[in-house]
Amino acid sequence: MNSFGIKLKFSTFGESHGKAIGCLLDGVPAGLDIDEAYIQSELDRRKPGKSEFETARKEADKVEILSGVFEGKSTGTPIAMVIYNTNQKSKDYSNIKDVFRPGHADFTYFHKYGIRDYRGGGRSSARETAARVAAGAIAKLLLRELEISVVSGISEVAGIQGDNFDYEAAKKSIIYALDANKEAAQKEAILTAKKAHDSVGGVSRVLIKGAPAGLGEPLYYKLDGVLADAMMGLNAVKAVEIGDGVLSARKHGSQNNDPIRANGFESNHAGGILGGISNGEDIVVNVYFKPTPSIFQEQHTVTTHNEEVDFALKGRHDPCVAIRGTVVCEAMAALVIADMLLLNMGATMGGIKRYYNHDECV
Amino acid sequence: MNSFGIKLKFSTFGESHGKAIGCLLDGVPAGLDIDEAYIQSELDRRKPGKSEFETARKEADKVEILSGVFEGKSTGTPIAMVIYNTNQKSKDYSNIKDVFRPGHADFTYFHKYGIRDYRGGGRSSARETAARVAAGAIAKLLLRELEISVVSGISEVAGIQGDNFDYEAAKKSIIYALDANKEAAQKEAILTAKKAHDSVGGVSRVLIKGAPAGLGEPLYYKLDGVLADAMMGLNAVKAVEIGDGVLSARKHGSQNNDPIRANGFESNHAGGILGGISNGEDIVVNVYFKPTPSIFQEQHTVTTHNEEVDFALKGRHDPCVAIRGTVVCEAMAALVIADMLLLNMGATMGGIKRYYNHDECV
Amino acid sequence: MNSFGIKLKFSTFGESHGKAIGCLLDGVPAGLDIDEAYIQSELDRRKPGKSEFETARKEADKVEILSGVFEGKSTGTPIAMVIYNTNQKSKDYSNIKDVFRPGHADFTYFHKYGIRDYRGGGRSSARETAARVAAGAIAKLLLRELEISVVSGISEVAGIQGDNFDYEAAKKSIIYALDANKEAAQKEAILTAKKAHDSVGGVSRVLIKGAPAGLGEPLYYKLDGVLADAMMGLNAVKAVEIGDGVLSARKHGSQNNDPIRANGFESNHAGGILGGISNGEDIVVNVYFKPTPSIFQEQHTVTTHNEEVDFALKGRHDPCVAIRGTVVCEAMAALVIADMLLLNMGATMGGIKRYYNHDECV
Amino acid sequence: MNSFGIKLKFSTFGESHGKAIGCLLDGVPAGLDIDEAYIQSELDRRKPGKSEFETARKEADKVEILSGVFEGKSTGTPIAMVIYNTNQKSKDYSNIKDVFRPGHADFTYFHKYGIRDYRGGGRSSARETAARVAAGAIAKLLLRELEISVVSGISEVAGIQGDNFDYEAAKKSIIYALDANKEAAQKEAILTAKKAHDSVGGVSRVLIKGAPAGLGEPLYYKLDGVLADAMMGLNAVKAVEIGDGVLSARKHGSQNNDPIRANGFESNHAGGILGGISNGEDIVVNVYFKPTPSIFQEQHTVTTHNEEVDFALKGRHDPCVAIRGTVVCEAMAALVIADMLLLNMGATMGGIKRYYNHDECV
Repeated sequence: MNSFGIKLKFSTFGESHGKAIGCLLDGVPAGLDIDEAYIQSELDRRKPGKSEFETARKEADKVEILSGVFEGKSTGTPIAMVIYNTNQKSKDYSNIKDVFRPGHADFTYFHKYGIRDYRGGGRSSARETAARVAAGAIAKLLLRELEISVVSGISEVAGIQGDNFDYEAAKKSIIYALDANKEAAQKEAILTAKKAHDSVGGVSRVLIKGAPAGLGEPLYYKLDGVLADAMMGLNAVKAVEIGDGVLSARKHGSQNNDPIRANGFESNHAGGILGGISNGEDIVVNVYFKPTPSIFQEQHTVTTHNEEVDFALKGRHDPCVAIRGTVVCEAMAALVIADMLLLNMGATMGGIKRYYNHDECV
Repeated sequence: MNSFGIKLKFSTFGESHGKAIGCLLDGVPAGLDIDEAYIQSELDRRKPGKSEFETARKEADKVEILSGVFEGKSTGTPIAMVIYNTNQKSKDYSNIKDVFRPGHADFTYFHKYGIRDYRGGGRSSARETAARVAAGAIAKLLLRELEISVVSGISEVAGIQGDNFDYEAAKKSIIYALDANKEAAQKEAILTAKKAHDSVGGVSRVLIKGAPAGLGEPLYYKLDGVLADAMMGLNAVKAVEIGDGVLSARKHGSQNNDPIRANGFESNHAGGILGGISNGEDIVVNVYFKPTPSIFQEQHTVTTHNEEVDFALKGRHDPCVAIRGTVVCEAMAALVIADMLLLNMGATMGGIKRYYNHDECV
Repeated sequence: MNSFGIKLKFSTFGESHGKAIGCLLDGVPAGLDIDEAYIQSELDRRKPGKSEFETARKEADKVEILSGVFEGKSTGTPIAMVIYNTNQKSKDYSNIKDVFRPGHADFTYFHKYGIRDYRGGGRSSARETAARVAAGAIAKLLLRELEISVVSGISEVAGIQGDNFDYEAAKKSIIYALDANKEAAQKEAILTAKKAHDSVGGVSRVLIKGAPAGLGEPLYYKLDGVLADAMMGLNAVKAVEIGDGVLSARKHGSQNNDPIRANGFESNHAGGILGGISNGEDIVVNVYFKPTPSIFQEQHTVTTHNEEVDFALKGRHDPCVAIRGTVVCEAMAALVIADMLLLNMGATMGGIKRYYNHDECV
Repeated sequence: MNSFGIKLKFSTFGESHGKAIGCLLDGVPAGLDIDEAYIQSELDRRKPGKSEFETARKEADKVEILSGVFEGKSTGTPIAMVIYNTNQKSKDYSNIKDVFRPGHADFTYFHKYGIRDYRGGGRSSARETAARVAAGAIAKLLLRELEISVVSGISEVAGIQGDNFDYEAAKKSIIYALDANKEAAQKEAILTAKKAHDSVGGVSRVLIKGAPAGLGEPLYYKLDGVLADAMMGLNAVKAVEIGDGVLSARKHGSQNNDPIRANGFESNHAGGILGGISNGEDIVVNVYFKPTPSIFQEQHTVTTHNEEVDFALKGRHDPCVAIRGTVVCEAMAALVIADMLLLNMGATMGGIKRYYNHDECV
């Protein structure tokens, strides 16, 4: 159950303190230019330690391609990518060895698997998401060939909401802020929490432009359903919205419907998806991240022997996981859209005949 | 792509105006008592025409089991269930034959498949969800054997939010209202909108009690991710929350973490899921339904030939789809939990050895 | 686990003595002409009771389409088909109620599921294959649009091997014999065994013509592997060959390689598949059916309580299951090829770009 | 499509002349002892260059585990294993760069993917099977815990058939010969062909002992069907038999049925499988390998530009691929059985209740 997607399927492996993490991307069509520098640049956007708004842990996150590429092009065979862990020095884990960290997955992994990798998050660490970003970078290269783009940014931090979104500005912001007018306040909220040994939540907003109408496989591999799974499955995510989301449930139909004209929809409350299928408009997804559970205040918890203890975490952690998280949201969105593009081929008999008799159109 | 689940997998078929709808439920363990009256009673909770808060369309929704049950018990083979459509009389479709209804899926289905079933929602109709409820009823019977229950109700209508939730009261409420103190206001909002030829949105809250810790298959078949997919894939749903959801993203870590004591968690902001795996607490999911797109006011739209027209829908429609929708949310939750229970078997070598050498423990 | 295929996926349901059997065919592209008379004619080729070479059990095998077709064309939604059982009259099962029939699946089903449907083969009955034939008929309609055909016949009965194969003759033969010169001897072998209360084995040979090079998804959904699964999964099948099959293992490389010339291969020992991918030549599959296990001679067996008994079966059974089985082999082959055609779309970046920008080629 | 299995699923990557090959094994239960020396010893059985009966190409085939194991035990997370290619020195490929090798997959890969990795078999090379052996070794460790074993050997070479099978002897034979009396003749056939610049076919026989009755998921993930897929999907395999296989089709029912007594079956023509489910007897699979297509005689072929040429291959190749292939057959069989064991959990309601309330039996 460590795979995602159907026609374009990726699988990841690795633990935060093991030898390496990595992924296998299967289903990449042959003949795609695999720009390794671009893949690395996407990983660099996600990698930790770039500013005071992130964990101080440093990781080079150098990706190495082991297979599936020949002379710069994909061959149609699985692309394996590996990222060796360089910052897993033997440190002293004695203080957390037997203690479940509140808000973390170590409690549930222990109850499921009966085994405790006490060196950190292990498989449940957000470190795994680097592998998703590597896979997502290749998906983006594929989408680029079809003039589809996926961008994102932070729309909200600690309840401070942006309302004027500029995706170009977000690319340049150290916290990927979408609203330049709110960026200063959002940064301050992060640093204030950090000083108080606390953390804050935040929201990533993902925008997909250029996707054709018709993507999504009803009724049980719908575009919105799969995007929801992709995002909710990220560490710390507790809510996902498509288009107007929660707000839609508070409106009347006459306010929420998007009127249609010959050149498109007059509004986009639907966020580009109707009945689980893209309608040709921008696709909009909001992803809500809880505050980092790793805080340095004392908390109630128990040990693996169910003994109650009071416990204050040490170490280096992101004060707001949404920030680096938004890069991962983009990657997941790109992987979903690319999978849907491939799955959609074959929806009509006309398309199949065109595909297999393509010389006809010469 | 008309199937959901892995070990307990259901597939549905049928269109709103075809001969029948139905489902195939595969993976039901042998030896489960299949209480047909219970399955029918669940369908009756969802069926239309029970009050002025629902569409006036009447459907008997009588379920017939075609296979997989022998002498009242499941046999381990697929259970096929069929519900014949009884209310698809040949009516005059000329007014909607070529017109896309705003907020509906007919636009996207036409662009994907190049075919128009002009008789109504066709495959995208909410009528299909009756098949989900039939499958979900069997999942509930399975869960009951393990003392796990799934209940739900309406927490919010048209922005009128309940805050004191009583699931027993919801069962008796004609609009499945969770907060008896808000029920009157919520009803009034629905009827007011209805009179104005409009519709309202609403929110379903689902509660799963008794699920053991350890359910969920990380990292790409997580419990929260799959629940999000299951719910977002329902007609009209635009947002899904686990536990505190959106609110979590506006809190500090010290407010959002759930402290742990020897007998369980001191709070449940997480909604019973950590790292995609159940933690033994109540699992809480909120599902946000947009207002019914079928309204009787004039709207801008286009025809299948992309001609602009102004169009007012006629017919019978739910003024608030969340109400009957909450029964479907329950069904989906039950199906997800049952699938996760089956998938979880085999998580540990100890469990496998116990299973295959069970005489040991006599 | 009652589904087969990935992009074109069918699921079947039903037991030999239940209300109905049927199938769900998912992934049929929209816009395919669904010729119901053709589907029925395929079922008629498989249905029992047509001659003394088959079981005397009569079944009308009337197929009814419940969904997925509108105005004679597929809509892209799942096609559900149901065949009601008409010949399951309440007969006296007391003699087989607790007795496992040698060579049958009732022993293994009982050990797996702990339940005994004593009325006959239940789910394991060859009756289920009617549902496969219905699905296969639609796959054949799809293939016909691409000028691909699937034919078959009986190449061998009771060790009497044909060597001059005529698929047109096979269509007209009551035992689907491929070699008209061997038909009389093969028929006699069947009737002789039948008179001796015994049964015979046989071999079906399937030929797929017109499949383009490139079908098959290496390395774990290869064309030959999936064909082998499809055929070996049929009741009574004990061996599957591609091309020269067993004989290949007894040859030298210089005898077995197929030399290549500009207009194709000079021989076809490979049976049209290299490395799990079609090479554009005829695809040839041989399917070996064991003799019907239902014989009327006394045999050693045990009851469900593990008591030893001597037991002679009564009833009506095919003396050679390969005969009607060959129709099912065709259906399975057609379903596999159609699935592979759909999966192959997306193999190259060029193909994807051509598909999504098809106006380019106008 | 580079994955196999459902609950225990492995995915492989890598090309013969790329940086590395490897696999990802997902679904290994937590708590299994991962004996790395054993995994390496299995790889050593398959690795080339051990005798004159194999290719002279040398590969260390050193496996490295990157994830999923902690303190010697599986953790329940995916186990990634990598084998770096050490023998892909830059040699001169000019003579085969544009020429399709008869009997090889390069023709079909080129037609499917439009790309040619001219350095050798690439993804279609038998080298990939080393990754299967690594995964299979872990499956064998799992089976060992349940007292299930998988062994194999060569029953036939170049038409010289053994008839007295000794699996212990096969382990010690340099050609894994099952019949010591035929070994000398089989060896001579190989060397004679080799001297003639030719190759020979052979047959692997796989035996699974100790598997409980009840394995196999009917109707479309049957034990025999999946074994057939697993074996037919191996390079050079052209036929697969279960039990008596081809011979069954030439017998009468009275000869082929296995009579049942209180302590088991009186014969095992069925090869341990009835109706796609194991019956508790030994499971027997025969796998037919064609002669190595790489021969050094001149053959007709064409170039990628469809120019006819006569061509004699150079290099180092196995004269009989079945020999090393039998180790891979074992691995595949072990992976299939382990997957079926996991899938079978949940077949009965009783088993599920026992699993989730295991304290009951204390």
